[in-house]
Amino acid sequence: MEQQNVIGIDIGGTTVKLAFVTYDGEIIHKWEIPTVVEGGPEGMVEDIATSIRNEQRKLDLSHEDFKGIGAGAPGYISLEEGIVYEAVNIGGWKDVPLSKLLGEATGYNVRIENDANLAALGEYWKGAGDKAEDLLAYTLGTGVGGGIIANGELLHGANGTVAELGHMTVIANGGRHCNCGRTGCLETEASATGIARSALDGIEQGRSTSLKEQYDQSGEISARDVFEAAADGDELAKEIIDHVTNVLGLAISNMAIAINPSKIVIGGGVSKAGDQLLEPLRSKFDRFTLQRTGSAVEFVIASLGNDAGVIGAAYLARQ
Amino acid sequence: MEQQNVIGIDIGGTTVKLAFVTYDGEIIHKWEIPTVVEGGPEGMVEDIATSIRNEQRKLDLSHEDFKGIGAGAPGYISLEEGIVYEAVNIGGWKDVPLSKLLGEATGYNVRIENDANLAALGEYWKGAGDKAEDLLAYTLGTGVGGGIIANGELLHGANGTVAELGHMTVIANGGRHCNCGRTGCLETEASATGIARSALDGIEQGRSTSLKEQYDQSGEISARDVFEAAADGDELAKEIIDHVTNVLGLAISNMAIAINPSKIVIGGGVSKAGDQLLEPLRSKFDRFTLQRTGSAVEFVIASLGNDAGVIGAAYLARQ
Repeated sequence: MEQQNVIGIDIGGTTVKLAFVTYDGEIIHKWEIPTVVEGGPEGMVEDIATSIRNEQRKLDLSHEDFKGIGAGAPGYISLEEGIVYEAVNIGGWKDVPLSKLLGEATGYNVRIENDANLAALGEYWKGAGDKAEDLLAYTLGTGVGGGIIANGELLHGANGTVAELGHMTVIANGGRHCNCGRTGCLETEASATGIARSALDGIEQGRSTSLKEQYDQSGEISARDVFEAAADGDELAKEIIDHVTNVLGLAISNMAIAINPSKIVIGGGVSKAGDQLLEPLRSKFDRFTLQRTGSAVEFVIASLGNDAGVIGAAYLARQ
Repeated sequence: MEQQNVIGIDIGGTTVKLAFVTYDGEIIHKWEIPTVVEGGPEGMVEDIATSIRNEQRKLDLSHEDFKGIGAGAPGYISLEEGIVYEAVNIGGWKDVPLSKLLGEATGYNVRIENDANLAALGEYWKGAGDKAEDLLAYTLGTGVGGGIIANGELLHGANGTVAELGHMTVIANGGRHCNCGRTGCLETEASATGIARSALDGIEQGRSTSLKEQYDQSGEISARDVFEAAADGDELAKEIIDHVTNVLGLAISNMAIAINPSKIVIGGGVSKAGDQLLEPLRSKFDRFTLQRTGSAVEFVIASLGNDAGVIGAAYLARQ
């Protein structure tokens, strides 16, 4: 029997990304639909099922051309039980049996996981992770997400909170408030939001910086602005990048000491800084990690961009 | 065919522990021999092989009564390659093909792993870990060792440094020197040695403490002394335990956020303090971890004592 295609779904706060993917991980067709939370999980599931049928029809593909569905969502998810325990960003779902609902609506077997975990799995399978059996993935975006591959498998954890790498405490006393209700999480310092906030804090403290003029003109500052200002020699921006890479280097080295990875994949908006991020990060990481642990590690920038989630979801569907 | 017995070996700096273990993990017979490093790996392997044959003869067991050998040693080890990359405490071995040497000397298939990893595997299989599919194990002894079970499997890592949990950096700036060459490792604060040193530091700083009298009389202070003094209300001892559980709570919570375990097993000499350790540790842990992550976790004291290593080794041999 021929090895069948699969369907990868990545449910996000703004859009649901979908893709038809070959058994070998090539995207045949991808598209997205808006995330509409008002109809609850049932409404969203119906939107997804209808959209899949429409796209299959357009492409002259039948139900039987696909083996099953993998789906990711932002929240605490149990693969084993097929339940989304909690997903704040898509309408505050609680204990939603997503595998069952989506299975009934589409007629496919459905496997679900946390979106950041699936992005890690995607990078492992077809991206910069290059099938490294032991791999850490960080997504530095609005927040900080993570995924861990160890012994060649995505880790799933006991109750849907595995690889919540953005919530490692990096500032034990004080530190900024985090959406999780605590303080000092990695996410509050090393996310795009955290980096921008560090710039605003500096401006508020009256630091002399090229970022002030920009802020006065446009009313906003992005992480990208901070990296650009640092490249132009701005002292405050350079200090912020030094701080961010120091905190991130410490957090990643502490994780590397546990997992002993051969690849560390950095993705998300902040990773667009490329070597301007990776070079200082590598040097801070080496300072904090065991020499032998460090010698096994290669840092790489994620290569799949926004497709990582649907490709990881497809890999999950394949299993 | 009947499921065969296996042989578990735990090579330590002072003694080599050996056990004949049933397929189900019951110890039939256990014994130990001194660790003699002078003859190099070949000498030690010969000692072990001879001792196994002698004990088999004594017990009227034959070579064929056993399926194979699992062995642990303190160092950086590759299970896959069967090589001890580096083992400082047993004569400074470097790149020793232990599986091959021990296999040739005994006629059995041999699988090797780091000793702390095997202790974790032992506790998982037959001890306090109770087959929790996601589990962290810490051994708080002279140093701090660790092992991680995730997705129901012992993690092996990329180059033999997996779960070196004692070398998580817990004091980013300053901190005590560690044997690994860096500073601020968990081991420098939360090992038995670290706890005793904190007491000595307090005495040197002229703190008023019942530990001083004891030190003046006996010339030494142990971690156990510190726990006993704290139970009697000694302020310095109470502060040390507060500090140790704080540092340990932070380190373990940062690891729990990655692994999302349902069990955290604490072993080694320091764990003999029991609830006097676990109660403050739990409260510090909860402060630093995600609420949902914390809700999945049970802290338990290791139950196999010095047998954990040979039982974990037996489990490895069985696979």
